[in-house]
Amino acid sequence: MTDNNQVFVREVGLRDGIQSLDTIATQDKIQWLKVESEAGVQAFEITSFVPAHVIPQFFDAQTMVEQGQLNPRLLLSALVLNEKGAMRALEAGVKNIVFVLSASATHSQKNARTTLENALAAVARLIEMVKQQPEPPHITGAIATSFGCTYEGHIESKTVLNIADRMAQAGVDHIALGDTVGFAGPRQVKNLFTQLHQLLGKLPVGAHFHDTRGMGMANVLAALEAGVRHFDASLGGLGGCPFAPGATGNIATEDLCFLLEEYGLQTGIDLEKLLEARRWLAHLLPDEPLQGALSRAGLPNIITH
Amino acid sequence: MTDNNQVFVREVGLRDGIQSLDTIATQDKIQWLKVESEAGVQAFEITSFVPAHVIPQFFDAQTMVEQGQLNPRLLLSALVLNEKGAMRALEAGVKNIVFVLSASATHSQKNARTTLENALAAVARLIEMVKQQPEPPHITGAIATSFGCTYEGHIESKTVLNIADRMAQAGVDHIALGDTVGFAGPRQVKNLFTQLHQLLGKLPVGAHFHDTRGMGMANVLAALEAGVRHFDASLGGLGGCPFAPGATGNIATEDLCFLLEEYGLQTGIDLEKLLEARRWLAHLLPDEPLQGALSRAGLPNIITH
Repeated sequence: MTDNNQVFVREVGLRDGIQSLDTIATQDKIQWLKVESEAGVQAFEITSFVPAHVIPQFFDAQTMVEQGQLNPRLLLSALVLNEKGAMRALEAGVKNIVFVLSASATHSQKNARTTLENALAAVARLIEMVKQQPEPPHITGAIATSFGCTYEGHIESKTVLNIADRMAQAGVDHIALGDTVGFAGPRQVKNLFTQLHQLLGKLPVGAHFHDTRGMGMANVLAALEAGVRHFDASLGGLGGCPFAPGATGNIATEDLCFLLEEYGLQTGIDLEKLLEARRWLAHLLPDEPLQGALSRAGLPNIITH
Repeated sequence: MTDNNQVFVREVGLRDGIQSLDTIATQDKIQWLKVESEAGVQAFEITSFVPAHVIPQFFDAQTMVEQGQLNPRLLLSALVLNEKGAMRALEAGVKNIVFVLSASATHSQKNARTTLENALAAVARLIEMVKQQPEPPHITGAIATSFGCTYEGHIESKTVLNIADRMAQAGVDHIALGDTVGFAGPRQVKNLFTQLHQLLGKLPVGAHFHDTRGMGMANVLAALEAGVRHFDASLGGLGGCPFAPGATGNIATEDLCFLLEEYGLQTGIDLEKLLEARRWLAHLLPDEPLQGALSRAGLPNIITH
């Protein structure tokens, strides 16, 4: 938990968002980074280091890291599912590696083709390895399907807390809980993050919500009240996990920022410019149904005539 | 506030929802009432007693009340904006009259062609009159634009609290706050309802949210945490006030019920049947863009193959 009123929004559209697309050109990704960073967004999950034959959208992972690093203000992270991916990310110079494992055994197999134990061991080895480096990268342990799984249904809180505890002991810098398939409701969110904070103390935790069943913003509020100050979102709510049936887009970055600002927190993001960036994205992807409500209504304004 | 886990959902689609439509046949309205009540919804705002030349959709107000009363399990309410409407509602046998006035002076003129003072006086006279009756109807005082107004911008909490206080002293049975144009965010909602409960003690209060900027479900959560247990919603999020530019539909009944049940409250509503009712509505109104996310994804379920 934090005493100040700062909150951190991480744009994951360039990773989670584009997984649902057939293809997107590197130049368009770079432009996306540019237009959204001009609205004040600093943190981007820029790519995923998974094999290109599995998710071809990330064929240009290394290029994206290089391009993103041209802007020193940006905080770039990249997703990995195993040590091989982590090695590629390190070689590319990624400063924040998000290692995703799953609370659900079945999702772990489908998404990363491994067991939870193997994934936890890989995280531990990665941390051992990077801490030898002069400037070790930041390692985030992200727990997918923390709130339920399309294959396994309800996921017990103690399962998630146990994974978080083991990753914290291994030395991760940050833990994030993902509602990969949009099963979470606000009561569950508040309970689980409250327990997580009690368990982890000052270790920062983040929330990654999908708006599959309309609970996205309520879940953000519940997480805020449990002290969470790091949130993932995708511009226009673009997204969906190809290996999690029923998954739809992330919460929309613009709706998230609107809520956070109203809540009295500072995102550092200009909402008008963020809506401009969304219009740019809608123009880039005319056939893609974007989500989010703020863009439809616009910021609250007053009619003077 | 209530100690038990019951929560009350009022379907307002047949009033607020259909205001945005060109026309809807009486038989279709009656069928809507039937299919949604079969899902367990008991409370309906069945019509509005406003002049038919102003909102022609309510030409059949009396018929709708009569038809609704054929099912003794239903709790029917009707909207009125003045004493003339209230008299018509009483003659039709309405047991729950929702008298709407506006916290915004400009919206009051546009919506009801009157001042706040005149509206408050009318509410007081109505209560004086009905309490002479052997079985007086229930009178709800509903405050439109409680969280902001497209014409006047921000509305001060003290304005809303003052109106609520005067209606409570006049003897209303229930007070509802409406976010007519979707300006509210969860912090404002929690603050205002907390103050309202402190002011009114045990007098029940309700919340009427529109999902204009995606804050609907977060606002519900904020209201729940402030002790609110009465919520308005419209099936498929149909709706919008024709005299409030920028207004869009109410929060979707199905998403609301999903949140409430996850929160541990009992709505008495069968979510699968409610989604069936929504499919019926979508079929009835093929050209109307319905809102709400639960219907898109369905209830959380598990893939067994």
